Parts: sequence; structure tokens; C-alpha cells
Amino acid sequence: MTRNDLFQLIRKKRSFLCIGLDSDLKKLPQHLLESEDPVFEFNRQIIDATHELVIAYKPNLAFYESLGTQGWESLEKTIAYLKQYDVFTIADAKRGDIGNTSSLYARAFFDHLDFDAVTVAPYMGIDSVSPFLEYQNKWVILLALTSNKGAFDFQLIRNKDNDNPLFEEVLAKSRTWGSADNTMYVVGATKAEMLEDVRKIVPDHFLLVPGIGAQGGSLAEVVKYGLNKQCGLIVNSSRGIIFASHEKNFAEIATEKARELQKEMESMLIHHKLLT
Amino acid sequence: MTRNDLFQLIRKKRSFLCIGLDSDLKKLPQHLLESEDPVFEFNRQIIDATHELVIAYKPNLAFYESLGTQGWESLEKTIAYLKQYDVFTIADAKRGDIGNTSSLYARAFFDHLDFDAVTVAPYMGIDSVSPFLEYQNKWVILLALTSNKGAFDFQLIRNKDNDNPLFEEVLAKSRTWGSADNTMYVVGATKAEMLEDVRKIVPDHFLLVPGIGAQGGSLAEVVKYGLNKQCGLIVNSSRGIIFASHEKNFAEIATEKARELQKEMESMLIHHKLLT
Repeated sequence: MTRNDLFQLIRKKRSFLCIGLDSDLKKLPQHLLESEDPVFEFNRQIIDATHELVIAYKPNLAFYESLGTQGWESLEKTIAYLKQYDVFTIADAKRGDIGNTSSLYARAFFDHLDFDAVTVAPYMGIDSVSPFLEYQNKWVILLALTSNKGAFDFQLIRNKDNDNPLFEEVLAKSRTWGSADNTMYVVGATKAEMLEDVRKIVPDHFLLVPGIGAQGGSLAEVVKYGLNKQCGLIVNSSRGIIFASHEKNFAEIATEKARELQKEMESMLIHHKLLT
Repeated sequence: MTRNDLFQLIRKKRSFLCIGLDSDLKKLPQHLLESEDPVFEFNRQIIDATHELVIAYKPNLAFYESLGTQGWESLEKTIAYLKQYDVFTIADAKRGDIGNTSSLYARAFFDHLDFDAVTVAPYMGIDSVSPFLEYQNKWVILLALTSNKGAFDFQLIRNKDNDNPLFEEVLAKSRTWGSADNTMYVVGATKAEMLEDVRKIVPDHFLLVPGIGAQGGSLAEVVKYGLNKQCGLIVNSSRGIIFASHEKNFAEIATEKARELQKEMESMLIHHKLLT
């Protein structure tokens, strides 16, 4: 999917919502535990109930790996199931290793699983990232400023040479490794006012924004500081949608929660003249 | 395995060698491709041929994930197979995410797969690391100064408040999250002279040192700058041992290569009076 395809998808769906499939077996509605593959069954019902309202799904790899081979099978079935819908798929994996190893991760997520995008941690620098950039029509989503409290430990350390915080160094350096057509950045909604600084460095890149809902970030703030002329935002909600109910009607409640966010997003897109 | 157990293992094996099981299906000896699970069969033969010479094995997750469910099965069989030997097991996974997600990765590697240790990237700070530290007798191995060229992109950026490079900030901050009894650090052999600075900050911690062999680091330099009173080093070699031969005698050649390193290590341990 190209950058323009993504913008057209946002216009068509009137939404820039991504649903995080953090499908923890221990939190699934009880009645699903009897099915053969509860995690896939849960994902399937969430996807069927929400695909018209969202542009992307983001399975979080930890939740699948914690179940071993069985979890990996649920993931493979989920990504195959998503292919029938017009959505962008993100492997939230936060990988990154020396070059020959990152090449194998790229093979895992882009060839084997056929995701559109994968999240990558920048700590190991250029050769840990570039193998992912060699794929046509695939995306690296690099961690810049994350939504958790630990973001303050290292991401805001200022470089003595230019006074820039580390996350800005990540943006400035890595934007030259790829381009706005194959690189996105994670910027947490919990630090929305910093999106203004982010946009000075990467005005055209798409940003993946976690942290609204359970983590407390504000959608209005994210849009105020982060929107660009192609929207440029993919805003994620996980627990706030998929675990809004643990009852038999969980999928219905997920639709309601997703629609609330989609409606907010639609009016913001109209307000900013990206939709009529 | 406790820190002292690890030191006793080093004394017993007269070695501080770790073999990286970077078992790329595309590089396996041809004749193994006929077996039912070539990756496991390769690992099994390498392990049988080398376990007396090494203290640890380090499967690199990328090589298993690139094969999907089948790869995950090979990994599960490998770790189960390793249980019969007296060795330390490291999941080279370089994970790290927000707290609730890191908890799931800890569940995957410590509960489900029962590894002794997992490598973690520090970019997301304290709450991405601490869930791994809650397990008894398990270890986090945090990236500090890696062996690749991309290490220069961010790890050496100096903090304007104290002039410390980022990797030293990682050491100084994270050593208070856990202790030398549950935390180790990755420091690449390709930057061995910097081990002197590392040892000023973490004199007692074990260090996992990749980069000798294929990546060009020197064992003598690593020992010169990195050894402490309990050895404090786990030195990894991957391709230089496991892919030293691609012929039918690959396991025999792996034994030879591992023995060369073990012999060097033994004489260094004797020289430094950690062995008689």
C-alpha cells in the first residue's frame, strides 16, 4: 500500500483508526474458550464487527508469542483473514538487530506473514533498520517518542552537540535512511504537544499514535498538533475497544466504541477540509 | 541459574563461550534438508558436538520466526533438548514494549519456553524492562553498546547534562532497576576498548559479548578490558562455529572451532587466576 493509497483509504473509511489486536488469552470472554482457537475466533469477530470503521489492524506480537506455536498459528490465521478487507496491517513487533538478523525479521513479517508494516526499535541504528526498507510497498514504523512512562528515561536526553532530544535525533537521522513513502514513526498520544516538534522534522510522514483510551491520551490534541495535508495519522486503540466488554456481546460493544472514535475522526477530517 | 552458578559453570567447563544458534534454513548443509525438521536436526547435532565446550547457547529468534509456526516448533524442540545439558540458555530476541506487553514477552520466554535469559532493547525505558525482572532466577540482558556499525548512530550521542554517551546512561540508569544478580549487558567485541568505561559503571555485572569471529572483534581485547573477578563475560560466536563447514562433517568442524576458542579462554582464565 502506498502513502497515497493510505490517504485514499482514510477518505473512503472517513476514519484514521487502527485497532490493536492485543488479544490476551487470559482476558477473552469466557464463552470463547470452548472454541478450537479462541484467540483467532476473538479476532475474527472483532474484525467482522469493526472493519468498516477502521483503516488498520495491529496485532501485538507479544500476545501471540506468549502462547508459543499455537499463538503463532492464531496470528497466521488472523493476517490471512484480514486479506479479504481493505485495511492496512501492522505487526507490532518492535524488532531490530544487526543487519543479517533484521533481514530475517523482514522475511518473517513481510514475506512469510505478508504484513504491510512492522514496528522497529531504533537503538541499533541504520543497519538494523535498512533491511526492512528494501521491500517494495512495505513500511517500517520506527519508535520515536513512545506513550509509556519509561519514554522519559532515554528518549528525552539532549544531545550536547545540538541540544536535540534523542527522539528528534532518531527522526532527523532516520528520515534519510528511507522516505515518507516507506517510513512512519511511533509518537505517543500521551505526549501530544510534542507532535508540534515532530512535525517540524517530518512534516510529510505518517505517524502511528498509540496511547488514546486506556493510556489517557487525547484525540483532539493529537489532531491539533499532528495532522498534515494527507491526514498523516494512524491512531491506535486496543484495550478500549477490544476489551470494552467481556460478555457475549463483546463484538457489538467493540463496534460501538470504534464508531464513537470514527465519528470523532470524521468530524475532525471535515473540520480540517480533508473530507466533505 | 544464579550469578555464582554461572561462575561455577565457567570454572567447570573451563570456558565462557556461548554459541549463537543463528540457524538459517537457507545456510544449512544440504543433506539435512531431507530430515523432518532440518533446523532442529542441525541444532541437535551442533549441541551434541559442542556442549562440553560451552556454557551457553543463544538461539536468535529471527531465524525461527522467519519460518513461522514450523520455526517456532523447531525453537521449542531446541530449548527442550538443551535442558538435558548443564548450560545457560539465552533467547536473543531484543524485545521491549510498554509494561503490559513486556509482561507477555516475559511470559513467552520465561514461562512458556523456559529460557534462562532474554535480550531486551532499552529504548522504551524502565517499564519496558521491569516485567522481565520480576522472575526469580531469570535474567534480562539489556543492549548497551552493540557490535554493529549502526551502534554509532545513537548509542554514542553525549548527554549535554553530564557528557555521558547514551550507552553509559543506559548502564547507569538500568543498574538500579535490577542488580548484578538479574541483569546483564550486551557490549560488542568490536568496541572492546570501551569495555574499560563499561566496567567503571558495572564492575560486577556479566556482559554478553557478541562480535568475535565473523564480525571481527578480538577475544584478547575483550578479556583485557572486560574480565572481572567472576569472569563476568559470556562471549558469543555464531557463524564462525555453526557455519564453519556446510558439509556432512559440519558438527565435527564446529567442535574444532569451539575447542579452539575454549582453549584460548581456558588459558586466559588460568593466566588471570580464575582457574588453576
